[in-house]
Amino acid sequence: MTPGSRDRVSMQQPSPILVYSIYRSDIPRFERLLAHALADVSVHCASSPEEAAPYLDEAVILYGWGFPPELPQRMPNLRWLQKMGAGVDEIIERWPLRANVILTRTAGKLIAPRMVEYVLGAILDRTLRFDAARAQQHQRQWEFFEIGSIRDLTIGVAGVGEIGSTVAQMLRALGARVLGWRRRSELASSAVDELFAGIDELPRFLGACDVVVLVLPLTKDTKNLFGADLLAHCRPGTHIINIGRGGLIDEDALLASIAAKVVGHATLDVFATEPLPPEHPFWDNSHVTITPHVCGPLVPEDIVPHFLANYAAFASGRPMQNVVDLERQY
Amino acid sequence: MTPGSRDRVSMQQPSPILVYSIYRSDIPRFERLLAHALADVSVHCASSPEEAAPYLDEAVILYGWGFPPELPQRMPNLRWLQKMGAGVDEIIERWPLRANVILTRTAGKLIAPRMVEYVLGAILDRTLRFDAARAQQHQRQWEFFEIGSIRDLTIGVAGVGEIGSTVAQMLRALGARVLGWRRRSELASSAVDELFAGIDELPRFLGACDVVVLVLPLTKDTKNLFGADLLAHCRPGTHIINIGRGGLIDEDALLASIAAKVVGHATLDVFATEPLPPEHPFWDNSHVTITPHVCGPLVPEDIVPHFLANYAAFASGRPMQNVVDLERQY
Repeated sequence: MTPGSRDRVSMQQPSPILVYSIYRSDIPRFERLLAHALADVSVHCASSPEEAAPYLDEAVILYGWGFPPELPQRMPNLRWLQKMGAGVDEIIERWPLRANVILTRTAGKLIAPRMVEYVLGAILDRTLRFDAARAQQHQRQWEFFEIGSIRDLTIGVAGVGEIGSTVAQMLRALGARVLGWRRRSELASSAVDELFAGIDELPRFLGACDVVVLVLPLTKDTKNLFGADLLAHCRPGTHIINIGRGGLIDEDALLASIAAKVVGHATLDVFATEPLPPEHPFWDNSHVTITPHVCGPLVPEDIVPHFLANYAAFASGRPMQNVVDLERQY
Repeated sequence: MTPGSRDRVSMQQPSPILVYSIYRSDIPRFERLLAHALADVSVHCASSPEEAAPYLDEAVILYGWGFPPELPQRMPNLRWLQKMGAGVDEIIERWPLRANVILTRTAGKLIAPRMVEYVLGAILDRTLRFDAARAQQHQRQWEFFEIGSIRDLTIGVAGVGEIGSTVAQMLRALGARVLGWRRRSELASSAVDELFAGIDELPRFLGACDVVVLVLPLTKDTKNLFGADLLAHCRPGTHIINIGRGGLIDEDALLASIAAKVVGHATLDVFATEPLPPEHPFWDNSHVTITPHVCGPLVPEDIVPHFLANYAAFASGRPMQNVVDLERQY
């Protein structure tokens, strides 16, 4: 360290950072990216509570996801928690820590592209009937079948924030008719063909869709929102895709709706309990596609620049991006 | 029939039409669509040579696909053959019938949307690692894995005509870097990030791609074009998607390239011999995804309007759309 850089550090009052990701393979990537950009800052990485323990006293900043919800409460100097990911429900439940701790989440625009790809892949897997093709291939059988098209679908996007709007726009570019639903009726959306708003309009929204994509945050208003009453309004054969939070859906009600041949298929990346317990009935339901929350964890290279921008704002006392509204809970 | 409509028919000299599709389920749809639009024209539909036999003498127009290649030669009054689909290779091989017979193919823009969806679905099935998710689900196992993104891929589109350009544009909208290849260097293309042209540039084109999409017509120049020599230039792990014609690829060379771990996966909708013979080694190769030419056969509702527009031109002696260039063979 040169005298010059030491001066600079001292001027900026660098805040020690604890990085936490349960995916151990990401740690070297975070270390490399942050060491390069924040050479003079104390950065420690952990992927378990034990690894994090030595740094809880010192750290002023917690940047991560997947840590035990009570971890931030054991950090006396914490002043900023930057969540990796858009969902902060599990943190909000323990909030507030102290009045001077800021909670920020990852910008939707950084997460939207992989959400778009997941939704497209989930829809195309059904419309192209890849399952039928696999079954035929397994039996060395060639029999033509007619495939569907996104152009013939009405797709509902529940949650038309930054992520939902991007999903909606790509689906429209592919020719789908896209309906949007959002909780608050005072907000318009140009991303969809028709916008529904408020709880009262949810039944009509669901009844108009061939595919329903859930991109909502989990809050006190959305927990178990999609239960038996609402699912009964779905069209027979509806394809539900959940990339929001598992807690949005009453999982027993979903299974009952599938058994009643109302919901035709569910492609789920998120679950009320993760990891999904081995005894859960989803596992061997042929109308459920399970992916292990692959949409959520973010690629370090994608999100670190956003963190660094917020770090610069934090260090200089300027307003930060994507500060969580504690009243709305997202 | 009213006297008025009889006059109109007589003025237009209505030409008897034979519609041929090997997909019997399409026949009622063609009958309904054409009866509605061409109430005074003799339209007969067939899905086998036997069903077609009574109408071969009379028909002036053959509208179809999947008929035996020699069928048109048994139609003494044939003056116009409208192929359902973009590929006319099997018809060209027997051409010309007579100097006054016009051959037209279906406009690429009518076929492009389903080609786009197939290519997206094929790519996303790999990048989202749906196979890994299925394997885990089968074993009730939850283990996170990192998924890929179209944004990180360089995708080559071999054949940047109407269909290939539409495919390229959608892939670019999703963030891929898209390279194009076309046989003739004198044609530019704004649909791709970089354009390669001519046989000489094919090795460099292939070596730059993570995914290669074949959208070429089958002609004397493209038959077995992708053989051992060219495939050797692919990057290890290349994903090949063929929605053009099976004859573009030397299938033995493709299998050898897969065995040598050069080509990583092939998603094939078309084959040198269709139906794919039961003994073909593709069937049980885990690096080959087989779909039974689902991209090719077109939905009657999508393509009949194009036929009717060409019919009106034919009936009135005006130039028709998508007349096949017999020199280029497409």
